[in-house]
Amino acid sequence: MEDIQVAARVTELAYALDTFYFLVMGALVMWMAAGFTMLEAGLVRAKNTAEILTKNVGLYSIACVMYMLCGYGIMYPGAFEGGVFQSLASIGSGILTSSDNTAADVIASGGDTYYSGLSDFFFQVVFVATAMSIVSGAVAERMKLWSFFAFTIVLTGFIYPVQGFWKWGNGWLNVGNGTVGFLDFAGSGVVHMCGAAAALAGVLLLGARKGKYGKSGQVNAIPGSNLPLAALGTLVLWLGWFGFNGGSQLVVSDVENANAVALIFVNTNMAAAGGLIVALLTARFWFGKADLTMALNGALAGLVAITAEPLTPAPGVATLIGAVGGLLVVASIVTLDKLRIDDPVGAISVHGVVGIWGLLAVCITNPDASLKWQLIGIVSIFAWVFSASLLVWFALKKTVGIRVSEEEEYEGVDIGECGLEAYPEFTSAE
Amino acid sequence: MEDIQVAARVTELAYALDTFYFLVMGALVMWMAAGFTMLEAGLVRAKNTAEILTKNVGLYSIACVMYMLCGYGIMYPGAFEGGVFQSLASIGSGILTSSDNTAADVIASGGDTYYSGLSDFFFQVVFVATAMSIVSGAVAERMKLWSFFAFTIVLTGFIYPVQGFWKWGNGWLNVGNGTVGFLDFAGSGVVHMCGAAAALAGVLLLGARKGKYGKSGQVNAIPGSNLPLAALGTLVLWLGWFGFNGGSQLVVSDVENANAVALIFVNTNMAAAGGLIVALLTARFWFGKADLTMALNGALAGLVAITAEPLTPAPGVATLIGAVGGLLVVASIVTLDKLRIDDPVGAISVHGVVGIWGLLAVCITNPDASLKWQLIGIVSIFAWVFSASLLVWFALKKTVGIRVSEEEEYEGVDIGECGLEAYPEFTSAE
Amino acid sequence: MEDIQVAARVTELAYALDTFYFLVMGALVMWMAAGFTMLEAGLVRAKNTAEILTKNVGLYSIACVMYMLCGYGIMYPGAFEGGVFQSLASIGSGILTSSDNTAADVIASGGDTYYSGLSDFFFQVVFVATAMSIVSGAVAERMKLWSFFAFTIVLTGFIYPVQGFWKWGNGWLNVGNGTVGFLDFAGSGVVHMCGAAAALAGVLLLGARKGKYGKSGQVNAIPGSNLPLAALGTLVLWLGWFGFNGGSQLVVSDVENANAVALIFVNTNMAAAGGLIVALLTARFWFGKADLTMALNGALAGLVAITAEPLTPAPGVATLIGAVGGLLVVASIVTLDKLRIDDPVGAISVHGVVGIWGLLAVCITNPDASLKWQLIGIVSIFAWVFSASLLVWFALKKTVGIRVSEEEEYEGVDIGECGLEAYPEFTSAE
Repeated sequence: MEDIQVAARVTELAYALDTFYFLVMGALVMWMAAGFTMLEAGLVRAKNTAEILTKNVGLYSIACVMYMLCGYGIMYPGAFEGGVFQSLASIGSGILTSSDNTAADVIASGGDTYYSGLSDFFFQVVFVATAMSIVSGAVAERMKLWSFFAFTIVLTGFIYPVQGFWKWGNGWLNVGNGTVGFLDFAGSGVVHMCGAAAALAGVLLLGARKGKYGKSGQVNAIPGSNLPLAALGTLVLWLGWFGFNGGSQLVVSDVENANAVALIFVNTNMAAAGGLIVALLTARFWFGKADLTMALNGALAGLVAITAEPLTPAPGVATLIGAVGGLLVVASIVTLDKLRIDDPVGAISVHGVVGIWGLLAVCITNPDASLKWQLIGIVSIFAWVFSASLLVWFALKKTVGIRVSEEEEYEGVDIGECGLEAYPEFTSAE
Repeated sequence: MEDIQVAARVTELAYALDTFYFLVMGALVMWMAAGFTMLEAGLVRAKNTAEILTKNVGLYSIACVMYMLCGYGIMYPGAFEGGVFQSLASIGSGILTSSDNTAADVIASGGDTYYSGLSDFFFQVVFVATAMSIVSGAVAERMKLWSFFAFTIVLTGFIYPVQGFWKWGNGWLNVGNGTVGFLDFAGSGVVHMCGAAAALAGVLLLGARKGKYGKSGQVNAIPGSNLPLAALGTLVLWLGWFGFNGGSQLVVSDVENANAVALIFVNTNMAAAGGLIVALLTARFWFGKADLTMALNGALAGLVAITAEPLTPAPGVATLIGAVGGLLVVASIVTLDKLRIDDPVGAISVHGVVGIWGLLAVCITNPDASLKWQLIGIVSIFAWVFSASLLVWFALKKTVGIRVSEEEEYEGVDIGECGLEAYPEFTSAE
Repeated sequence: MEDIQVAARVTELAYALDTFYFLVMGALVMWMAAGFTMLEAGLVRAKNTAEILTKNVGLYSIACVMYMLCGYGIMYPGAFEGGVFQSLASIGSGILTSSDNTAADVIASGGDTYYSGLSDFFFQVVFVATAMSIVSGAVAERMKLWSFFAFTIVLTGFIYPVQGFWKWGNGWLNVGNGTVGFLDFAGSGVVHMCGAAAALAGVLLLGARKGKYGKSGQVNAIPGSNLPLAALGTLVLWLGWFGFNGGSQLVVSDVENANAVALIFVNTNMAAAGGLIVALLTARFWFGKADLTMALNGALAGLVAITAEPLTPAPGVATLIGAVGGLLVVASIVTLDKLRIDDPVGAISVHGVVGIWGLLAVCITNPDASLKWQLIGIVSIFAWVFSASLLVWFALKKTVGIRVSEEEEYEGVDIGECGLEAYPEFTSAE
């Protein structure tokens, strides 16, 4: 090979490695769909299990289609070489062609064009599904299936992409091209708090499950029906999060970036471990028992907490950031129950409350962060997603309705919505 | 480093990247074994669960051994530098040595030898296991365990490799070295329809489960016992399919191939989403309920449909190809029940009927495809696999028998075949 | 690019590929935590399921923190550029900084520094969690949760790292820098037998579960409550083991190493298949039934057996090494029951007995191995881990106690330790 050919070959090889890395990370994030599905199926009652499964696989599919149809174009208008409205207008061409960077362009860019545009779409589309998965858990056991799907269409096609554009699409929150201003590395705010805000709006309009809160103020525990599934779901999410955070570095093909991805893997893992341990200890001392569901939510809290900044903390600090998340999630779950905000799986606490903690914690380790901009980001994303979601939930409530009938709730939504039972042989005696 | 050394190092690096990519994709396909296992365990009754688990882990193991012993040599005689019979004769050496490409050969080839021969074996061996997994679901709840394993030996060691050789081993179906003639990118025909044809032959000789079809023509639903497992299995298969289709590109190490793998990932994902949504809607309008099992089969149908050509469609078109698969699978499941062909998990519909759709759909987007050659491929593969399988099932039926006794079927095959129960504490009251 | 720049870029690219490969392999090993969790949850009774889930997610988290705090420094003192005690003294800096190799150092090393130091920590930390996971299964259904966690702290922070240092930290067992002397490629001894030795010490002090062994010498089967979970766990472990063994090659970025990783994948897969088939056949002929749990343990035995040397055997030989493991595990499980050593999941047999077999089998295919050194390694690792563990278990027994009360054991440890049930709706009738 001539020298120039070798240099071009090296550029192509780097492009291939980065694209492959991005696809593997994206596949891990897609796997998180299985994590949410198992987690939520494990934490609801048996009679509502088939419906929560249907919601989860359905929302993932709808998210993919809506994000392809318009969400991606809204969030990354540059991907279509035009503004938001131009992009919306060009939907037709977007889904009918599949052009990508040419080898000549990549080589001419000298490595600045470093991965396939389609691999970027793949990574982004599994992120929006993650955000929507957060909602399904919070509204479980009482929401109408098709109203939920209607909301899914709006969130994944419009509400999520708009605030995603603000930060990652280089909008007004992405001050100084992401080097100063609001910092959110992998989405404690853009993905997790976004999902939690949409969930909170839904839960407020939906109301609590029958029997959850007694007339004299007591909170009745409604235990999950299948804790091995909840544990499995948590471990799936833990694994998938390596892709979620690790892929958000976007590049791996040189020493600096490879080290960065390695540090992100380590910090993600340590934050989850810290969150789990502290949540388990907190539950032990507060309730007297090693509450497994709190431990699982603690691990998830640790993961959410480190997501806003997995790159600047040393591993010991990442462990502590996750540990604070584990403490917060237990306190938040207890508090929300006192406020009679019924969230069967703790999603609002894990992704919302701890998501905010994660965004604030960026200021501890990243010298480029400013508390002011973190607060601006938190308030603006929350305000947008919460109010837009509230509007959509409200419109659905006033038209098709969002809550199943009392009888259907009592008998379980599986029969009413799906026409089948998740465990027909295990619970038939009841 | 000298220039020539750098060029050689680049060639080695590309070889390493392609081999690593191939191994990761293969590991994802191996993971599909868990997908089939969970899917089938979720869709059978509790009393037959341990046996279907045993079948699935057993068939995977047998497939690996048989494909190593003779299947790989039959399918890729070139891998042993000789014809089919030479290859069979040289089995001994094939399993006792583990030679691979030398660095000198790779460098001398200038990149034409682009991955490890053993990585190719790994990828291929998990494919044959996939084909066999399709059979186990269709014959569930009534077939003798050891007769099933006997069939596994023949299918994985002989029947599958012969038709695999026709296409992928550069046999008579691989016209123009795969550029024209019968096109089957990742195996809608060679893997999925092959498995379905073998399953259909078995089901026809085996007959329906007791109580499935009433004397007056009605079809009795026999609900699956554990739908979370079925949902998990589907999501595992969805993830694994990125390896199945994505790995079938075989190379990732330059811009063009990296883009191709990215497009395949996107299309695979979109086809599954399209299939799921349409199957769910079809079930909703046809049966009045959001039938979860139909939704799951819809996702799998979308995946099977795109497998024959995941590279030429744009993502929007891939979604539609999957969507048609989702529609077809619901119609096919209903139709097979009318024909009293009892397939407990819908495997023949998902992999056979939709596999044929996938092979025909190649003509829509790939200008090199011809309807004539697609039909030739479909007919020849189906005819070979179905007739050879029928012969083997028939021989087994006439000798050791293929169906368990009525009493064993009534009590569940778990006790009879495995001597244990899958859920001894959950169903003991019955 | 200048020539020298291209050469540097190639070195960086190789570093990135090796680091990425190492992280992906590590993620697969982390996934084994889910495998052990599901396997053990499936094999215990329903009333002890939530507690075994808690143990598994808890031990993983504790292992990560303890290994970061001191384990890694003890095992790889070189990583801190100092001796064991220096390393212990420098814990503070180790967890507060996250320095890694600089690009300049990597380029200057000409490729000798081939991956990120943090990726090494990530890979190692999931290994120590694997070792500890082995213990939880063996002591299931009767051990106090918090005593188990106390032991976890000592094993993962101290006992495991000391013997890990002997071999992999370049200690006295690593004769000739790993080219002669005690050979243990990926840890049949350092990880698996280590875990089994710690488990055996615990089981001996703990005693058998109530009702397991009758007064007149009979062994009562205590069936696992959820075999699909056990099968899932086994398949998760099978997948994760590709990372466990495949990552232990440490490098993938040239032809020789890429071929090596491919061979390791193939051999790992074949050994598991061989182990499963032979265990299933052995159970069939010995007990008259195709015992699923024996088949699953056979696959795991095959995996443990090949772990000490997955690189020198040809695939056919690897299959046989795994097959012997499958035979041994069935014999060992039966024998341990005769000795009234109660191991609910067969962990001591799978990881201990077969781990020893794997270490001995190195001599069959690797000409550098010596039986003498393999025996020295086996005896020294076992003696250290068993005696140190016995001491710790004994101290715990004499202080806080290690066994739950008879009443708690009868009612299930879930209620007593975790304050909740794993399946509140499925078993409430009992």
